[in-house]
Amino acid sequence: MSNQEARAGRRGRAARTEKRRGSQAAGALPYISRNLPVYDILSDEGAELIEANADRLLAEIGLEFRDDPETIAIWKAAGADVSGERVRFPKGMLRELIKTAPSQFVQHARNPERNVVIGGNNTVFAPVYGPPFVTDLDSGRRYGTIEDFRNFVKLSYASPWLHHSGGTVCEPVDLPVNKRHFDMVYAHLKYSDKPFMGSVTAPERARDSVAMAELVFGKEFVDQNCVMIQLINANSPLVYDATMLGALKVYAAANQACIVSPFILAGAMSPVTVAGTLAQVLAEALAGCALTQLVRPGAPVVFGAFVSSISMQSGAPTFGSPEGSLLLNGAAKLARRAGLPFRSGGSFTSSKTPDAQSAQESAQTILATLVSGVNFCLHAAGWLEGGLCSSYEKFVMDADQLGMMHVLAKGIDLSEEAQAMDALAEVGPGGHFLGAMHTQRNFETAFYRSEIADNNSYEQWSADGGLDAAWRANRKWKQMLASYEAPLLDPAIDEALISFMANRKAEFPDSNV
Amino acid sequence: MSNQEARAGRRGRAARTEKRRGSQAAGALPYISRNLPVYDILSDEGAELIEANADRLLAEIGLEFRDDPETIAIWKAAGADVSGERVRFPKGMLRELIKTAPSQFVQHARNPERNVVIGGNNTVFAPVYGPPFVTDLDSGRRYGTIEDFRNFVKLSYASPWLHHSGGTVCEPVDLPVNKRHFDMVYAHLKYSDKPFMGSVTAPERARDSVAMAELVFGKEFVDQNCVMIQLINANSPLVYDATMLGALKVYAAANQACIVSPFILAGAMSPVTVAGTLAQVLAEALAGCALTQLVRPGAPVVFGAFVSSISMQSGAPTFGSPEGSLLLNGAAKLARRAGLPFRSGGSFTSSKTPDAQSAQESAQTILATLVSGVNFCLHAAGWLEGGLCSSYEKFVMDADQLGMMHVLAKGIDLSEEAQAMDALAEVGPGGHFLGAMHTQRNFETAFYRSEIADNNSYEQWSADGGLDAAWRANRKWKQMLASYEAPLLDPAIDEALISFMANRKAEFPDSNV
Repeated sequence: MSNQEARAGRRGRAARTEKRRGSQAAGALPYISRNLPVYDILSDEGAELIEANADRLLAEIGLEFRDDPETIAIWKAAGADVSGERVRFPKGMLRELIKTAPSQFVQHARNPERNVVIGGNNTVFAPVYGPPFVTDLDSGRRYGTIEDFRNFVKLSYASPWLHHSGGTVCEPVDLPVNKRHFDMVYAHLKYSDKPFMGSVTAPERARDSVAMAELVFGKEFVDQNCVMIQLINANSPLVYDATMLGALKVYAAANQACIVSPFILAGAMSPVTVAGTLAQVLAEALAGCALTQLVRPGAPVVFGAFVSSISMQSGAPTFGSPEGSLLLNGAAKLARRAGLPFRSGGSFTSSKTPDAQSAQESAQTILATLVSGVNFCLHAAGWLEGGLCSSYEKFVMDADQLGMMHVLAKGIDLSEEAQAMDALAEVGPGGHFLGAMHTQRNFETAFYRSEIADNNSYEQWSADGGLDAAWRANRKWKQMLASYEAPLLDPAIDEALISFMANRKAEFPDSNV
Repeated sequence: MSNQEARAGRRGRAARTEKRRGSQAAGALPYISRNLPVYDILSDEGAELIEANADRLLAEIGLEFRDDPETIAIWKAAGADVSGERVRFPKGMLRELIKTAPSQFVQHARNPERNVVIGGNNTVFAPVYGPPFVTDLDSGRRYGTIEDFRNFVKLSYASPWLHHSGGTVCEPVDLPVNKRHFDMVYAHLKYSDKPFMGSVTAPERARDSVAMAELVFGKEFVDQNCVMIQLINANSPLVYDATMLGALKVYAAANQACIVSPFILAGAMSPVTVAGTLAQVLAEALAGCALTQLVRPGAPVVFGAFVSSISMQSGAPTFGSPEGSLLLNGAAKLARRAGLPFRSGGSFTSSKTPDAQSAQESAQTILATLVSGVNFCLHAAGWLEGGLCSSYEKFVMDADQLGMMHVLAKGIDLSEEAQAMDALAEVGPGGHFLGAMHTQRNFETAFYRSEIADNNSYEQWSADGGLDAAWRANRKWKQMLASYEAPLLDPAIDEALISFMANRKAEFPDSNV
């Protein structure tokens, strides 16, 4: 029996077990297939103008690829105009290169029922990425630990509205920097069977991530299929640094997906305008995406755009702003026109607490995310404090909002049953529909049922303790962790992972760089 | 000097005085002219299907017009199929009747700089309407009073993001039911110079409202121009009652605008589906709008849709739901196709407190309001607890969100200055834009500046007291009321209004029905 067959057999058993357990993610869809038209704010003429400006930026100003002679050599060999670390691109060169990238691709999960399709009309929600801090209403704000990390993996697994386990759901600051990637990747594989993200903080950590995926999926399968997706940020404006380039090259060579994302706070890292920022986003994303195709033609790559703005009074980052929504929407159109899957959006906020500000800013952005046609949405749940903090309460509040996005994404059902002409005839003027046969047939699935919102009367709500949404969310995440059951992981695979990590960790000393 | 000339002279003086005072609403626009494409979720084919269903409802089931023989006689004379209080409409009849209604119209304010255009690409934001309760964080929830009423009028006046003074900003429960309309209309005229809404709770109160408007604008001017807009709800499903019909007829005859709004909580007052509810909304709205044109052809009328859903577990109304957004969006398209201005949306929530739930639900709905192309948005600020409560904190939080909608409504600026190619050339790879000449030229107006959001660091926010958004809003509304200055009202007009009210109030005893 080949490695891959063995894996398939194990995955089949795991899937059957999952079905028996039924439980937490019952009714969950592996990802959203939108039946909702894309909302295009930027006109075709506007997009052409931005594209022409990006072409000029690429040809006249160019980008810098710092401290990475190998990448410079790749660009030189590809025919770019190289001068030191500065690389300029003749018009059309990058667009020609990205033609080999798939417009959509499957990211495989270890449970094949949780595979996601990234691109097209699909939207995949993944949790918050990167915060060094965590917070909850009981214990307050503190540095994240591997226990917090596992908890957020478990919450993503248990939520029917998260499709993905994500990556750095928080930084496990209690582990050494140079070894924590082992425990992070292992946590995703052990405590979830949803797709996940690999380490990008150094090329060897990227290679470790691929090696661990190979133990689960089989070496040949990984070489031919995407089983990991990674976040590669540009160092805006117009710079890529060696760390990100190193990870990009490892993953592209391994046929694993890179999300090439300009990380921009407009006003500081780009011009103070939407149109100017969009030209820069396009130039940076095209360069990074094209590089993946030079490393391995056909490797999956996602056009990313992390774009928000700063306060021009204080310089502080702002999130959920109207300018952020316009940037997101415009960048989505540019990605579609480039023929690449698009990553952006999330439940952004600069609030320090899961209050009205946090909800308002998150709602603005997540709606823009859905209607703009984002394919991969990182930071969809748990983000607080400008991304510095993963919040337990915010996580479940955001997840609830993502549930609503699932309903909105279905658009308007025009089936005969949905037209409900029989109900209207049955009830007639002045009646009510609660008892109508049509209502009886449809009420179970009729409306989204929030697990956070309180719709009761003031009197009932007061009698229930008068809790606000954040405190209801506090109860909810505790319930979710208390009833969490791990998905089955083949003990042989588990042992192989543990053994691999132990051996690799013994090869070099702990370090916090 | 004619009445109208005198009025114009007074308004001229008032406007000049307003300009000198400059003050609170500086930079405010009288209404939003959207430079943003309308987001169409319902396809043309879908709209045709809904329209055919509405035609069938109107022809086969019809509507009831209860306890109002005059309205029945109007329909009979117009050629409808009348049987008792049930009226059925031959296909096409109502669409023919509404052809005399304007597709957009001006509602005049007593300060002409605050006139609003209702229809077309324009959006007008008006405050919450109808709550018997008010709440603030200091005093908690209690019945509204005329002092609260005046406070909300003052807050709407002082906010640059509210275009309209609204109507029943809260019920002044301390005044007798049959006389409070005098004090409500007077408060709008005295404490604001933005456009406002008249009373609809009885035909004679509607006539009083018109009479008071005539004292301000002149009798002839009122007969030829819209100076008031009124909320006329259908008693869904498929019923209009005598109270609403009475007010509709008074206002239409006086050439004042009616917003004819099905008031629907889907699942109880309409089918449990979006498509079924939309057919009912269209049938009800067409019938009410057509009636205004039979009373006075050419009278301004707005196609309204107050549509949300109920919890199918508890029967409680739910707001800010994804189904509500789909209903709003679909109804907007039906109104556009009918050639009428459209009213819907608002900052809806069923939360009892200005928490994350309230903000999330409000954000969902207000974004749907803007991108769906709503022309008149009642309940844009202050709504809490399913509309039972006007909240001081929620009011200013919502108003801040409306400010963001003003930015979003501008769309993406593609001017040469916005393209910022000079900034990109000046800064180059690895630089920053804070000091760029382009940034210096544009930073003042670059990004929306929220007066509620806190974007500071965790440390700074903690040092500032660690307030959540609701408590920051608490400070803000108190500042707004403390610095409120009334717009000038000609003392002769003021005396005429006071004298009219005193005489009318003396004509009949107080009553609470």
